[in-house]
Amino acid sequence: MPRFRPNVAAMEAYQPGEQPPAGAKVIKLNTNECPYPPSPKVAEAIRAELDAGAAPGDRLRLYSDPGATALRQAAAEAYGFPVECVLHGNGSDELLAMLMRAFVGEGESIAYAMPTYVLYETLANAQAAKIVTFDYGRDFALPQGLFGCDAKIVFVASPNSPSGTLYAKAELERLARSLPNGVLVIDEAYVAFAESDAMELAKKLPNVVVLRTFSKSHSLAGMRLGLLFGPKDLVAGLWKVKDSYNLDRLAIAAGAASLRDPNWTAANVAKVRATRARLSKELAALGLDVLPSQANFVFARMKDAATAEGAYRFLKAQGILVRYFPAPRLRLQDGLRVSVGTDAEIDALLAKLKEYLARG
Amino acid sequence: MPRFRPNVAAMEAYQPGEQPPAGAKVIKLNTNECPYPPSPKVAEAIRAELDAGAAPGDRLRLYSDPGATALRQAAAEAYGFPVECVLHGNGSDELLAMLMRAFVGEGESIAYAMPTYVLYETLANAQAAKIVTFDYGRDFALPQGLFGCDAKIVFVASPNSPSGTLYAKAELERLARSLPNGVLVIDEAYVAFAESDAMELAKKLPNVVVLRTFSKSHSLAGMRLGLLFGPKDLVAGLWKVKDSYNLDRLAIAAGAASLRDPNWTAANVAKVRATRARLSKELAALGLDVLPSQANFVFARMKDAATAEGAYRFLKAQGILVRYFPAPRLRLQDGLRVSVGTDAEIDALLAKLKEYLARG
Repeated sequence: MPRFRPNVAAMEAYQPGEQPPAGAKVIKLNTNECPYPPSPKVAEAIRAELDAGAAPGDRLRLYSDPGATALRQAAAEAYGFPVECVLHGNGSDELLAMLMRAFVGEGESIAYAMPTYVLYETLANAQAAKIVTFDYGRDFALPQGLFGCDAKIVFVASPNSPSGTLYAKAELERLARSLPNGVLVIDEAYVAFAESDAMELAKKLPNVVVLRTFSKSHSLAGMRLGLLFGPKDLVAGLWKVKDSYNLDRLAIAAGAASLRDPNWTAANVAKVRATRARLSKELAALGLDVLPSQANFVFARMKDAATAEGAYRFLKAQGILVRYFPAPRLRLQDGLRVSVGTDAEIDALLAKLKEYLARG
Repeated sequence: MPRFRPNVAAMEAYQPGEQPPAGAKVIKLNTNECPYPPSPKVAEAIRAELDAGAAPGDRLRLYSDPGATALRQAAAEAYGFPVECVLHGNGSDELLAMLMRAFVGEGESIAYAMPTYVLYETLANAQAAKIVTFDYGRDFALPQGLFGCDAKIVFVASPNSPSGTLYAKAELERLARSLPNGVLVIDEAYVAFAESDAMELAKKLPNVVVLRTFSKSHSLAGMRLGLLFGPKDLVAGLWKVKDSYNLDRLAIAAGAASLRDPNWTAANVAKVRATRARLSKELAALGLDVLPSQANFVFARMKDAATAEGAYRFLKAQGILVRYFPAPRLRLQDGLRVSVGTDAEIDALLAKLKEYLARG
């Protein structure tokens, strides 16, 4: 048996949220998917690609566009960036991996505040990078240690997961300007549900990139689409570590179609925000300590870890999946992260949670 | 501007074959796509996925299966492997990148014989690996230097590109057994068009993996699907460096459907092999030095580099794309690689090539 690199042998795989088996009757509030369907233009665009050739699916025999031009062009127009400042990923996860490969050598540092998206740690381990972390306090303000730190990349999820905290553009700018050699990666996976964003920083600062995903507000988690916005030279370098044909034909068509139907996305976002407000209020009424969320999920702490883990298990037994983070290093064991579902799904969750709490 | 890693700053991006703009009337014989459509079951499976939810495309809002179980199960059955010995990639390119990340640290060696698939070099550079190469002779037999070499990974494309040479299973076994610490990666992207394969080695040796792709015989280059077969422990380790959701829902459905329609694929392969025989014979009749090919392309040398490059340009001007490799280090400048198209496409190519040669 050949030997894996020591860092790979020692690391654990990233554990994605549970996926119920196909056809299971489950209320799925554990991976922050959108509860509403994608724009009908998406299925239309996919069908058009299937029907375009001489036989059904004939176009699929040809390689996809390595530059995903249709998608990047739509993104450039939607967000007001030059197309050469936009890069496409097989989910924003792939863009995170590309950034790591491009900027971080073995033993070099990356930094982020904890708890946040666990994949930053996984990708750093795969790269044999040194991980420097700073603990978020109870208010999830950016820790001062991040400012001026000597890391190749600093990752900030804004809104952060699982806290739902948004970081102000001015503060992120101050952070970016404080980094002597580092790239600030602002992971805006959830920003469509927030009050503001920091896209402008990717236009004006040489060391800032902003990531977006289609998995949340575009209702396309199953199509694996992400976008990166950043300075032209930085984007040009990332192409070198990109898989040539990283997006398939149908994903490119789907993403472009969704970007060209912004009203659909906006309507879904408005519904999610309204339900989020109600969910937050009702969880607080049940006595949970609810963090104010600018994302499509809510994190709420219970009286202790046993109560939270019990709630997670009780809900799961009742066919409702929420996210529980058991790892001690994350210090989230007393809470649950609940994705904002439809109103009916949230009603079901609240009813079951009430039942659990009533049992004592 | 932050600094890229030195290896990334110094490297060049992989150059995929030219992609003509959508709608261009081009005979595309440059990237070894299949000229025949994929199984009709593929488009059916994609449409079924689009139609499965409450609204068109509704299922796409849910993450895809990180384990791509439907695809891996179909592959396990089709190839007679336990499912835990099968891994799925976003094209076999992604599987190559995963192998590199899992086994090769900075400054560690990989080895392969030249010329071959150029991506091995690109991926090694992205990983800051040391590249050890051995030159193929005119007959493209495996160079003796590969045997017993101290590399973390040895890559052998079988059939090789652009030569079309197949390597015998017994010889590959001898190579694998000669490697003290290395993994032998047998890249069987083109093997469906060959007389035999080496899949059995991935079952019986602890350090062999075999890669397959859907881009050639399955007519699904545009869907980005690859498979890796290998020992259970080795496959388990690779999961750690895999993007969690590396395949989208439609790709998983497409790949599984194609694997479950082997007669369709076999019929396409038979047509390609028949046309390959004719193409080889007619190129030889035109005076080209044709390498015997076991793949879905033919490499043929002309009298010198100027003649070959001239032919490439002439054909391109006539709307026929073939692959020309200008890089001196590949020593392929006197040849053209021609993908096996339909009989009509090959007739057009031969007519134009005759015209070019007649001009002297």
